[in-house]
Amino acid sequence: MRCASGIEARQVDELAINIDPIQAGGRLTGDAMKAVIAYGDGYSVCDNCRKPNRLDYINKPPIAEFHKDVAGWLNMDAVRTVPGARRGFQAVAHTFIRKGDPVLLTSLSHYTEFLAIEGAEGIACEIPADDHHIITPDAAAVKIEEVKKQSGRAPVLAFIDHVDYQYGNMHDVKGIAKVCHQYDIPVLYNGAYTVGIMPVNGKDLGVDFVIGSGHKSMASPAPSGILATTTEYAAEVFRTTAITGDVTHRKFGIKEPEMMGCTLMGVTLIGMMASFPHVKERVKHFDRELENNRIVVDGLLAVERTKILSEMPRKHTLTRADTIGSFDRVAETHKKRGFYFSSALEEKGVTGVIPGATKVWKFNTYGMTQKQARYLADTFGEIAQENGLTASK
Amino acid sequence: MRCASGIEARQVDELAINIDPIQAGGRLTGDAMKAVIAYGDGYSVCDNCRKPNRLDYINKPPIAEFHKDVAGWLNMDAVRTVPGARRGFQAVAHTFIRKGDPVLLTSLSHYTEFLAIEGAEGIACEIPADDHHIITPDAAAVKIEEVKKQSGRAPVLAFIDHVDYQYGNMHDVKGIAKVCHQYDIPVLYNGAYTVGIMPVNGKDLGVDFVIGSGHKSMASPAPSGILATTTEYAAEVFRTTAITGDVTHRKFGIKEPEMMGCTLMGVTLIGMMASFPHVKERVKHFDRELENNRIVVDGLLAVERTKILSEMPRKHTLTRADTIGSFDRVAETHKKRGFYFSSALEEKGVTGVIPGATKVWKFNTYGMTQKQARYLADTFGEIAQENGLTASK
Repeated sequence: MRCASGIEARQVDELAINIDPIQAGGRLTGDAMKAVIAYGDGYSVCDNCRKPNRLDYINKPPIAEFHKDVAGWLNMDAVRTVPGARRGFQAVAHTFIRKGDPVLLTSLSHYTEFLAIEGAEGIACEIPADDHHIITPDAAAVKIEEVKKQSGRAPVLAFIDHVDYQYGNMHDVKGIAKVCHQYDIPVLYNGAYTVGIMPVNGKDLGVDFVIGSGHKSMASPAPSGILATTTEYAAEVFRTTAITGDVTHRKFGIKEPEMMGCTLMGVTLIGMMASFPHVKERVKHFDRELENNRIVVDGLLAVERTKILSEMPRKHTLTRADTIGSFDRVAETHKKRGFYFSSALEEKGVTGVIPGATKVWKFNTYGMTQKQARYLADTFGEIAQENGLTASK
Repeated sequence: MRCASGIEARQVDELAINIDPIQAGGRLTGDAMKAVIAYGDGYSVCDNCRKPNRLDYINKPPIAEFHKDVAGWLNMDAVRTVPGARRGFQAVAHTFIRKGDPVLLTSLSHYTEFLAIEGAEGIACEIPADDHHIITPDAAAVKIEEVKKQSGRAPVLAFIDHVDYQYGNMHDVKGIAKVCHQYDIPVLYNGAYTVGIMPVNGKDLGVDFVIGSGHKSMASPAPSGILATTTEYAAEVFRTTAITGDVTHRKFGIKEPEMMGCTLMGVTLIGMMASFPHVKERVKHFDRELENNRIVVDGLLAVERTKILSEMPRKHTLTRADTIGSFDRVAETHKKRGFYFSSALEEKGVTGVIPGATKVWKFNTYGMTQKQARYLADTFGEIAQENGLTASK
């Protein structure tokens, strides 16, 4: 079925259990879907834009209120929406990093944090993860001292992922922020996998910026995200424009250069807003998500010689599996080679595993029902047994 | 009717003739609406993202093909999608402008061009418009010489709006580009009001960058847009990442720092793609749009002491009216003051004029039928007569 010329209608989440690592938290809520339909047109949220003509001042739809609510929810002082978390990284990097400045991030940091540093011409300095793929406050302290020794000064900014994209491991941001602040390094909390998934309290974590992703974790259309900060740093990253026209002497009001003025003028913003009440509610029930994840992980671990590379017990639903000793061994002689695995999963109604992947791969159980979790756990066992592997029950 | 908690369902374009200056070209096509429904979820276009893992390489949905098609359509060599035209300005500005560099734009330039220059710490140098609010190649030449005299060097980049947002006037980009190139100044063509509205041929215009807005002029959801360039400049603005992790020695493949990696991962991109066949067709019929605009303009000019501040005859449907001598005179004594005008329009099924505006205001007739244009022209006359103004027929 096509929805437009050459474009197949997407029915992935309608027809299967989707365990894609990046898609689970970005499925729209029913309300977001309805709002997206009502506000699909280009500048749809701008009908009632009045002076001072900035997106976050619009009252109908209640965009101004949404900004305040998100700030309160994250226990931060000021919020702006951005076209993806990466655009939040870019804004903060551009504000604080000058050419050649050392910048802290981690050996598990997402590539978009590197690109933000590259754009600002900073030097990326990774805090190494320990043997368990955890970034510790101690490692942060050691790295900062190393950077100071090598470059003569402390890093100017630290990007810390609360939950990293590689293992889905949870890192002690609070402890790391404390260390960073001893060196006056502002801390950017990358909540791409947490904001909208589990409770996040910026002031309690002691961070200076909280960045979230709408399309990854706030049940919103892409590209969308939020950038929250404190009153102190809002004055810098949300500074208003100072440029003037040399001929017309025009000024540009309260537009913010790091935001490039208004950010999400339509469907993306309204999707975030419509999902927000549901997102606020769902973060309170992350324990249920972890319980479902445990069911699936147990099902996988029941397959002989299968390992979970993420920390155990799991603190997040994004999980990295190692099936080199199990499903990959089957691939060696299977006529479909590695493709048998994703193909068997698809036949049983499970999607989101990269076709051909049987060695090390990631999945995300977020948003599934307990029944689906049990089904998925059983499915891994069945595929194992159908292919001559032992799976204890 | 609410579509979500606290959010009224938007029915602006369903219930009225909308002459909002920025909304006319961004209304979704039926196909875009269907595609938006099918691809609402966060990372919806990423189901089949495979190595080298970049948005513009995805074949299903046909994103790679769309990029090639847009490049061919604009007669440029390379295209990327961006979260709004402004993010295209930002990428080009960041690539070419260094601190203190003079940058050319015009006295009619949009604020986002100023913000892009401000972000890159350039100096904004406006080419003055002439008495008819037109930017001429001669004025560009004079300005470049002035800049050279004052700062000792030519501007490093020129932002030229083909059709400006203030008057909807059309400027001789081809002539201006020729002048700029005599000084080796790369030219960015701002097609926010033209790409998707009328035919644009980048090579024929002799420009180095063509930027278009999805939500303003390509019947697409916000934020969306395109950045097109030549093979020569693609190597600069679409350069791939060079940063590495100092501990992990990670590299980040062919991700592009000015794009911050992938750009439009879901509903925004699919909306552009679904509307594209219709957009390609509609630009061929811009003459019909101008004819409708003429009908409306004639209707307005029939009202005593009403002026059109935009160039005449109109070359674009975005038009600036001066009703200080007519509708504003009524406002002086009307019990609703200036609000009577937008209010009367609303009562007659016309929306998009800022409430209270009766002096100088803009409207856009793009996308209406001839019947609607005639109705709108008559409506202006009726409101005039109902308020004691003369309107010749």
